[in-house]
Amino acid sequence: MSLPDSFERLTVLFRKLPGVGAKTARRMAFFVLQQPVSYAEELAACLSGLKDRIFTCSRCGNITDREPCAVCSDLLRDRSTLCVVETVEDLISIEQAGVYSGLYHVLGGRVSPLDGEDLDEECLAGLVRRIGEDRIREVIIATNPRIEGDLTFHAIVDRLGETDVSVSRLAYGLPVGGSIEFADRTTLLASLESRVTVKRKE
Amino acid sequence: MSLPDSFERLTVLFRKLPGVGAKTARRMAFFVLQQPVSYAEELAACLSGLKDRIFTCSRCGNITDREPCAVCSDLLRDRSTLCVVETVEDLISIEQAGVYSGLYHVLGGRVSPLDGEDLDEECLAGLVRRIGEDRIREVIIATNPRIEGDLTFHAIVDRLGETDVSVSRLAYGLPVGGSIEFADRTTLLASLESRVTVKRKE
Ligand SMILES: [Zn+2]
Ligand SMILES: [Zn+2]
Repeated sequence: MSLPDSFERLTVLFRKLPGVGAKTARRMAFFVLQQPVSYAEELAACLSGLKDRIFTCSRCGNITDREPCAVCSDLLRDRSTLCVVETVEDLISIEQAGVYSGLYHVLGGRVSPLDGEDLDEECLAGLVRRIGEDRIREVIIATNPRIEGDLTFHAIVDRLGETDVSVSRLAYGLPVGGSIEFADRTTLLASLESRVTVKRKE
Repeated sequence: MSLPDSFERLTVLFRKLPGVGAKTARRMAFFVLQQPVSYAEELAACLSGLKDRIFTCSRCGNITDREPCAVCSDLLRDRSTLCVVETVEDLISIEQAGVYSGLYHVLGGRVSPLDGEDLDEECLAGLVRRIGEDRIREVIIATNPRIEGDLTFHAIVDRLGETDVSVSRLAYGLPVGGSIEFADRTTLLASLESRVTVKRKE
């Protein structure tokens, strides 16, 4: 049976979205049909020209619709601390958690030998240059707690040897609200090695 | 932190889609940004005016971009058999399985006392009228194997008493490729009651 062309096309396009299979794509297309006409029109308006309206902040690599981005232009933030993340997604996660008030630097890359990825020279040089120009005093490396994140961390640390900044890394440990029972061995080991002294033997 | 307006708006709109939570909506919005510009533009073009291009077939209730729909206008189909389904989604599932070559009738409703839903009189009258006008000889009721589907089935059967057609219902039983171990009690009971005789005692 041939479904209406635009319905098929919509299903095919939805299916390309991350985590969307054939059935979900069809459900989504039906959903759009069942909504008031304004839903499809708003979504269309939002998508059309999207990539002209959103670009990358030239300073930090965040996504933005003005230059520099909202974070970089916020004078209330701590402008001497730089949090280095792998991707804009990571930046937004930290930002939405509301736990950090310094600036960011999006690497836009990582060291992952298995995927044949490496940080290019310009990426690290850009970080070092920014630290100098913006008079950064502390760099917090917030790479992901995985092998690739660790390799990326070391690549950055190696390169920061030439700069005069404090460097730290996000702590590894038990996720708050999680349970020891379900923690994997690596996390348990990390949380044991990073254990916090509560009282010292006298 | 304020994300670019159109990015936020896109995330909000994606989040309304069925099965999409906050994190998935954000991943989808990022995905769109990372695709070639043609993806967002194609999706926009497909959505804009969608509800003008797609409407409901006046004969069977299928979605279509021409009148009557592809199924109703297909002269190679068995035009004396009518499969009654609750929704267009059900019609498409049966159609894509490629197991049926008659016509359809979408009820667009069901009997569900818990949700306060009932088949309106016009819905059943429309079915009876169509059976007469289109000289239907067999009606296959393909309501869903749930309480609501059963109630809907009975409402249809009651009403079809006044017509001269054969009426059947999709069989209940073990899903092919499934396992008895994981079948629920109701399915096991249904498959036992509908058991197929292989050899008769002499
Ligand atoms: Zn920025
Ligand atoms: Zn039709």
